[in-house]
Amino acid sequence: MFRCNWAGTEYALRVVTTKNAKVAVVGASGYAGEEVVRLLLAHPHVDLVAVTSRQFAGKTLAQVFPRLSHHEKAKGLKFFDADPKQLAREAEVIFLALPHGLAAEFAKPLLQAGARVLDLSADFRVKDAAVYKEFYGHDHPAPDLLGQAVYGLPEIYRDQIREAKLVACPGCYPTSILIPLRPLIRRKAIDRKRILITSLSGVTGAGRKIEADYLFAECNESVRPYGVPKHRHLSEIEQELSNLAGEKITIQFTPHLVPVNRGIVTTIYTDLAGDVVEVDPALLFSGAYGQEPFVRLFGEERLPDSKNVVGTNFIDIAWKIDNRTRRLVVMSAIDNIVKGASGQAVQCFNLMRGFPETAGLI
Amino acid sequence: MFRCNWAGTEYALRVVTTKNAKVAVVGASGYAGEEVVRLLLAHPHVDLVAVTSRQFAGKTLAQVFPRLSHHEKAKGLKFFDADPKQLAREAEVIFLALPHGLAAEFAKPLLQAGARVLDLSADFRVKDAAVYKEFYGHDHPAPDLLGQAVYGLPEIYRDQIREAKLVACPGCYPTSILIPLRPLIRRKAIDRKRILITSLSGVTGAGRKIEADYLFAECNESVRPYGVPKHRHLSEIEQELSNLAGEKITIQFTPHLVPVNRGIVTTIYTDLAGDVVEVDPALLFSGAYGQEPFVRLFGEERLPDSKNVVGTNFIDIAWKIDNRTRRLVVMSAIDNIVKGASGQAVQCFNLMRGFPETAGLI
Amino acid sequence: MFRCNWAGTEYALRVVTTKNAKVAVVGASGYAGEEVVRLLLAHPHVDLVAVTSRQFAGKTLAQVFPRLSHHEKAKGLKFFDADPKQLAREAEVIFLALPHGLAAEFAKPLLQAGARVLDLSADFRVKDAAVYKEFYGHDHPAPDLLGQAVYGLPEIYRDQIREAKLVACPGCYPTSILIPLRPLIRRKAIDRKRILITSLSGVTGAGRKIEADYLFAECNESVRPYGVPKHRHLSEIEQELSNLAGEKITIQFTPHLVPVNRGIVTTIYTDLAGDVVEVDPALLFSGAYGQEPFVRLFGEERLPDSKNVVGTNFIDIAWKIDNRTRRLVVMSAIDNIVKGASGQAVQCFNLMRGFPETAGLI
Amino acid sequence: MFRCNWAGTEYALRVVTTKNAKVAVVGASGYAGEEVVRLLLAHPHVDLVAVTSRQFAGKTLAQVFPRLSHHEKAKGLKFFDADPKQLAREAEVIFLALPHGLAAEFAKPLLQAGARVLDLSADFRVKDAAVYKEFYGHDHPAPDLLGQAVYGLPEIYRDQIREAKLVACPGCYPTSILIPLRPLIRRKAIDRKRILITSLSGVTGAGRKIEADYLFAECNESVRPYGVPKHRHLSEIEQELSNLAGEKITIQFTPHLVPVNRGIVTTIYTDLAGDVVEVDPALLFSGAYGQEPFVRLFGEERLPDSKNVVGTNFIDIAWKIDNRTRRLVVMSAIDNIVKGASGQAVQCFNLMRGFPETAGLI
Repeated sequence: MFRCNWAGTEYALRVVTTKNAKVAVVGASGYAGEEVVRLLLAHPHVDLVAVTSRQFAGKTLAQVFPRLSHHEKAKGLKFFDADPKQLAREAEVIFLALPHGLAAEFAKPLLQAGARVLDLSADFRVKDAAVYKEFYGHDHPAPDLLGQAVYGLPEIYRDQIREAKLVACPGCYPTSILIPLRPLIRRKAIDRKRILITSLSGVTGAGRKIEADYLFAECNESVRPYGVPKHRHLSEIEQELSNLAGEKITIQFTPHLVPVNRGIVTTIYTDLAGDVVEVDPALLFSGAYGQEPFVRLFGEERLPDSKNVVGTNFIDIAWKIDNRTRRLVVMSAIDNIVKGASGQAVQCFNLMRGFPETAGLI
Repeated sequence: MFRCNWAGTEYALRVVTTKNAKVAVVGASGYAGEEVVRLLLAHPHVDLVAVTSRQFAGKTLAQVFPRLSHHEKAKGLKFFDADPKQLAREAEVIFLALPHGLAAEFAKPLLQAGARVLDLSADFRVKDAAVYKEFYGHDHPAPDLLGQAVYGLPEIYRDQIREAKLVACPGCYPTSILIPLRPLIRRKAIDRKRILITSLSGVTGAGRKIEADYLFAECNESVRPYGVPKHRHLSEIEQELSNLAGEKITIQFTPHLVPVNRGIVTTIYTDLAGDVVEVDPALLFSGAYGQEPFVRLFGEERLPDSKNVVGTNFIDIAWKIDNRTRRLVVMSAIDNIVKGASGQAVQCFNLMRGFPETAGLI
Repeated sequence: MFRCNWAGTEYALRVVTTKNAKVAVVGASGYAGEEVVRLLLAHPHVDLVAVTSRQFAGKTLAQVFPRLSHHEKAKGLKFFDADPKQLAREAEVIFLALPHGLAAEFAKPLLQAGARVLDLSADFRVKDAAVYKEFYGHDHPAPDLLGQAVYGLPEIYRDQIREAKLVACPGCYPTSILIPLRPLIRRKAIDRKRILITSLSGVTGAGRKIEADYLFAECNESVRPYGVPKHRHLSEIEQELSNLAGEKITIQFTPHLVPVNRGIVTTIYTDLAGDVVEVDPALLFSGAYGQEPFVRLFGEERLPDSKNVVGTNFIDIAWKIDNRTRRLVVMSAIDNIVKGASGQAVQCFNLMRGFPETAGLI
Repeated sequence: MFRCNWAGTEYALRVVTTKNAKVAVVGASGYAGEEVVRLLLAHPHVDLVAVTSRQFAGKTLAQVFPRLSHHEKAKGLKFFDADPKQLAREAEVIFLALPHGLAAEFAKPLLQAGARVLDLSADFRVKDAAVYKEFYGHDHPAPDLLGQAVYGLPEIYRDQIREAKLVACPGCYPTSILIPLRPLIRRKAIDRKRILITSLSGVTGAGRKIEADYLFAECNESVRPYGVPKHRHLSEIEQELSNLAGEKITIQFTPHLVPVNRGIVTTIYTDLAGDVVEVDPALLFSGAYGQEPFVRLFGEERLPDSKNVVGTNFIDIAWKIDNRTRRLVVMSAIDNIVKGASGQAVQCFNLMRGFPETAGLI
């Protein structure tokens, strides 16, 4: 910032940015898509040039998302039924907020046309097409692209994301699990065979699915486990943990649905490694994340609470050593739609384009 | 039931009951106290003769609890400031819904005067006064009574409860944990060293505490772990598990607060015992609980959901074997105020008085 | 009740009932249908002989409604795809919990076959087929039956309900409005031209409709008016008020959706009639409703709160005279599914069959 | 903005601001105080120099409000026990987020010391000390200051706010009512004698009061009117409406508490004025508010929903003419803590300091 004094008043001159990125969002009708749009409309270095949705084609952003209706751009920009070729002509970077299976089909022509793609679906997260089929129940629609996809978790893959053409944005549960576990796995502080994880998620985690299970009166005053014992996100969690460990890791994972709109709280049980005499998690975590813009370390002072992260891109992490059991219990909280999806996608986008990593996010 | 036909109309004659019990509730101003009152007012074999509360002394039940205001009895019965001697003259059975510490002080004179006591606090749950002090932070107020207290979990101690003068009604978390674990521990189906438990509780679990943490806007849209790693209920859970096992058992337990009024969902992770070739949990659970009036076994077909038990005295239990990890995941759901407190107390009361065990509860 | 003493023990003998009614529920898959089933399963004088649902045909009640899964009957009774002729052979009384339009089509053959019908839809509430068409957008499917239908509000039509073959159970909003307004209209205490009403309803009021508007994340943390200015329930509200007044009454009515499962709170603004020197609403209301089993009068002492009536068949009524404006503000609360639908239907059923009016409801 | 091209890259230079304002917040422990702090921390032209709270003295902002804990300033800035003299030395503008009564006592020395004050309490909203006493139950603590206070509703008093030393920020209900009614009153489109208003408010409207009524389990699954018939906000609503009308206006107003954290929805019933042949509310409202940065007019197309404004400083306004009753029903939605309190205060602050009116708010 450059400050000067002119006619008795102080002015500050700031180099605001290099030129804006032209961006499109495909499938912007779900919760993650809406949130990407909201973040991009407020992003200082973005020109949102197109949004697509079969369902809402012909309507403006303002009509479909009344909470955005004050934006000039939202009043003018109309959804259209996505045509990859047209999109790639108009936009340099494209966010895909489509169901898995469909996303990969869209990514292909976009990448061929030279666009860079951030995919919020599960299509490019798992590197092994056989594992994809095991967990998602159908053949991978574009296995040839798996090699070039970068897993979009900046806390692990920051450098690769900068150069990526195709970013596979992580799932919400994996984000809440991998960030806390990474330093513990890397430093061999815990028994890799005995990791058990419980997560609690708000209802938007299921997307804007119009199913009886997600009606208000079915979720309100209801708490329930689901996806036991083999939730789909296990595929990417175990892949990434195994990468970190250099050996195959299998975990236990139980998600629960709780009646909040947004937020994931994850509780991770780990056995301290047998040969570890003394562990200082504070040192481990601050060493790993002291400089991370979106990781807040609560240590042993305060437990996480989803309400502290809702609407933000932060992950809050706390831990307790249980001397009775020699276990280290690590807890995290994120907003499943922001750090667990759209915010993290924008964080990756900032890296890809050389913008400040926090642009549009703080 | 005796049926007869008189003047062309069929009549049924039923022996309704032996004579009613005279019952009082001490400290009826909290959530558990209110629920005991509600259940007793509707109980076919109970005469509610007194309710006490310092805070509400002089007001009628109907004034304090408008949801009960249609009951004739609620319109007439006034709270008074409890006097144990007077109580013991009027009532044969007394429910204590007082804070721990205070409950034991009340129990003593009541028992001496010949009343039978059901205590909803933690005062008589733990048999070892030293453990009580470790977990509750003060000396036990009546250690000489610990020997005669029966832990009020009918699924384990039905016969002892029938004869008990003093019943220590279990905590809500312990109820949701001990019933599912009992057959697994008894049959040595699981590794007793590796039991990890996550529970999710509605906000009434904290009682009607007027603290900032329990204000609506602090709990709504909030999910949070608490009491990590050493929640007070560990004391009774480990005592009872150790009793079942015949050896000291130490567990991992993490409670979470979720924004529902009522309901606990518990997820229990167990390692199948090493020498077990094949386990059939369905057989184990139906053997143990097939005849229990308040245990509903969902097996592997359906996962528990707190909304199915809210307002009832049921515990729903489901399980899944995870072949990937050789673990058995057991899940349960109860209403923390009913099966987790007041309903279970009434169930014990029915046993003590020889009434049908489900009287006033179904 | 007859008491006797036999071998030292006191017994009470009670004439329990005349013979049970054979009852069926058609369309038992929505919230009102499920609640009727729940109430009938617990009703002392009912044999539930059949439940129908196209969607759930072949499944047992216990499978579809896990909260009922402890009932022996729920374990055995299977939904089938309704066939009116078969139903009329098996059941004497039939509850219709179908969408409007469809209900009338079912009612016809059932009535012809001699069954008595309680319809929870809007099909028989409005006496004038033209008004029905105006508000519901299609021709009435069975206008010839309109004449024999009795509007099922016991507080107004108790005697007619006793004899009715076809009862049109009132809508939830009308119930919360008509009961408070009846004595004021009848006694000419208020200006009939200036009645304005605001209602707040829980989300089950919309039924189990699988639409985006009723998803959890669309309703939670959301408050919104809807149906402005001409909600469908106006048709029956104005019909019944006009009947009471003996002249055409037009009102203002605005419903709002609020994030609770159950409950309606209604606030009614009335101008005290110009020639009234002094009004004593307490006298008016207690004169009208002092003996009603399900009306609780709070007077000026306490305002209604939906949580006091949820799960019950009560309507709570309170009022305040505003001397600044010479208006009488009357407020009521009901459970929209119980007194606003299924509970009231059972109350009517009790009248039709000569059972105690509160049987199965308190 | 000035754009230039340097070494092949395009840069944009923008004159960011005149110098920042030094600002303090007194009583920053309630919901409105916390929100003012949150907004000021993110405000581009503010240096937050002090926050005070007796309760939290000595703790940092980050410790008390974990959701702000990533802010560098929040980590360093400690609450202290307010001393007006010290505050006036450090800050040019001071936000008071204190209970009524106390606020006026603080305002006096601050104004004397030359600071400009924005008071979020009710102390300076009502111009007539007698009316204040009637509604607040005690003598006004500083009646001599009433004359200089400006009612902080920019949509009415924009010019006066710019010059004000003391701004009385409006209550949440009045904001949701006065903005919609202003053009209707001014243009004499409605009958001023017949204005009836229903409002629904989220629980933060009651502040962070630690009372049983605001516990989670007392508000969740609860809907209730309160403050009937004479809520305190009537004093300022009627004062401002009367000012607009040039004659005394008395209204009917009923607030309701609904279980959301934030949000007010207000439904206003007005009789179209007798001599009005044709009214075009769209013309009226767009004439009045077409240029307002925080008023969004939904017209007849869409009804307001609190979820569209939560977290924002917008007021959404919709209306319907009811031809059956010749009434105009106007509905509005705001966030009670933002446009209804802290956001509006910041909007006034921007006006007072000549910053863009939307700075820190969009």
